[in-house]
Amino acid sequence: MAPETRRSSKTSPEYELIYWPGIPGRGEVVRLLFEDAGVAYKDTAKASRAVETVLAHSAPESAGDAANPPTFAPPVLRHGGLVINQLPNILLYLAPRLGLGPASGNEVYHLNELALTILDGLLAEVHETHHPIATDQYYDEQKAEAKKRAKAFREARLPKFLGYLQRVLDGERSGGGGWLYGEFTYVDLVLFQCFDGTKYAFPKTVEKLKKTGKYDGVFRLYDAVRERPNIKAYLESDRRIDYADGIWRHYPELEEDE
Amino acid sequence: MAPETRRSSKTSPEYELIYWPGIPGRGEVVRLLFEDAGVAYKDTAKASRAVETVLAHSAPESAGDAANPPTFAPPVLRHGGLVINQLPNILLYLAPRLGLGPASGNEVYHLNELALTILDGLLAEVHETHHPIATDQYYDEQKAEAKKRAKAFREARLPKFLGYLQRVLDGERSGGGGWLYGEFTYVDLVLFQCFDGTKYAFPKTVEKLKKTGKYDGVFRLYDAVRERPNIKAYLESDRRIDYADGIWRHYPELEEDE
Repeated sequence: MAPETRRSSKTSPEYELIYWPGIPGRGEVVRLLFEDAGVAYKDTAKASRAVETVLAHSAPESAGDAANPPTFAPPVLRHGGLVINQLPNILLYLAPRLGLGPASGNEVYHLNELALTILDGLLAEVHETHHPIATDQYYDEQKAEAKKRAKAFREARLPKFLGYLQRVLDGERSGGGGWLYGEFTYVDLVLFQCFDGTKYAFPKTVEKLKKTGKYDGVFRLYDAVRERPNIKAYLESDRRIDYADGIWRHYPELEEDE
Repeated sequence: MAPETRRSSKTSPEYELIYWPGIPGRGEVVRLLFEDAGVAYKDTAKASRAVETVLAHSAPESAGDAANPPTFAPPVLRHGGLVINQLPNILLYLAPRLGLGPASGNEVYHLNELALTILDGLLAEVHETHHPIATDQYYDEQKAEAKKRAKAFREARLPKFLGYLQRVLDGERSGGGGWLYGEFTYVDLVLFQCFDGTKYAFPKTVEKLKKTGKYDGVFRLYDAVRERPNIKAYLESDRRIDYADGIWRHYPELEEDE
């Protein structure tokens, strides 16, 4: 082995995030963990042949290898010989390694349940508002149904999820410090990103919900994450990607009643 | 402490599953882990005041306690002082404790990603086929949209998920033994239950897909789980609940093209 090779070896291999270019999407939640922790990562969305890299990990030809099952869809995380997918699973793997959650004990399962619920309510269900019929068809082909689904989201689902999150913040386990689970953890970053996307998609709805005063803790947490030095620097950098036609989209008609 | 009390104390506290009565639903996946492992559990769906028990863990008044955040929705697992929700999270917790998955290492994340993908495709997306607009409204109010969503599920999503699962079975990591991840693990039970429910909901569609011969490994795995002695005994017992108006429902019109 040449000295150069030995010099460049690290205690931990590089983290590599494989995700679609041009949208924040699910990959953005993973990015926020790296950014807050100040840990270097390779982001294939910003490298050449970004789309091809994603397809190599989700096309029907991709078969996995002796150590890893094939992955279903991005985001995909590669870390040394490990290749994994499914956003909550990637977060579960990264949190203890980035100092954003415990490695073992009951706390692991409490944080994982909070992440799963936030991702259900403020990511998956937001995507459903503009694609309630078929993910592989255009929005325009399902606009009428999207208006109905969006109405149910605005009136029932979003208040339900925000009410739950406020309840978590008001709960004994949160402890009144403003974070979901006592100390700051990765689930606060998950909530920040998913709420940011939901605000982008439904600005009038979120403003109206803010005025009720029922979810003040959620809004305060959102502002507090924004002010964390590494997150603040990241959001102001050109590494932060603008919203576009991804999960969190803004269609003004989805905020209007028919 | 009286001798009787000492005699009845156990090394591990009793597992308690809190779920809706009258439907297999998400709770059924948890039950299959206990049944296959031959581990005793309390099933509140089969106890008195079953609905009240669920509501106590999901109503807006439920606040959690000093150790546990409030839960969002059933299934909920109580084990000693721990209370957790979110199905994939409960499975993650139980698998190593019931001998159905490793406690640490990369394998944990591979199994978790497989469970998440199966639950996305063959549970959450099946529910969407009959409730594409609003979970809190009746099927009859969203029947037209359900027909469209079901068509997309039958023609695009279901083949995509089954194709992926067959790819996992064909992959090097599965090893050709018929289980998703080498040895038998909890994800094989997750696939069994979710595929069983999908077959119930879309019998003609699944039969048609069977005839293509493209997913033989998935069908073989399904049959193999059914023949596991503890599962076989459970399926024949009255503990197994019939399908009804839960996640997996059979509406013949959702298999017909308009």
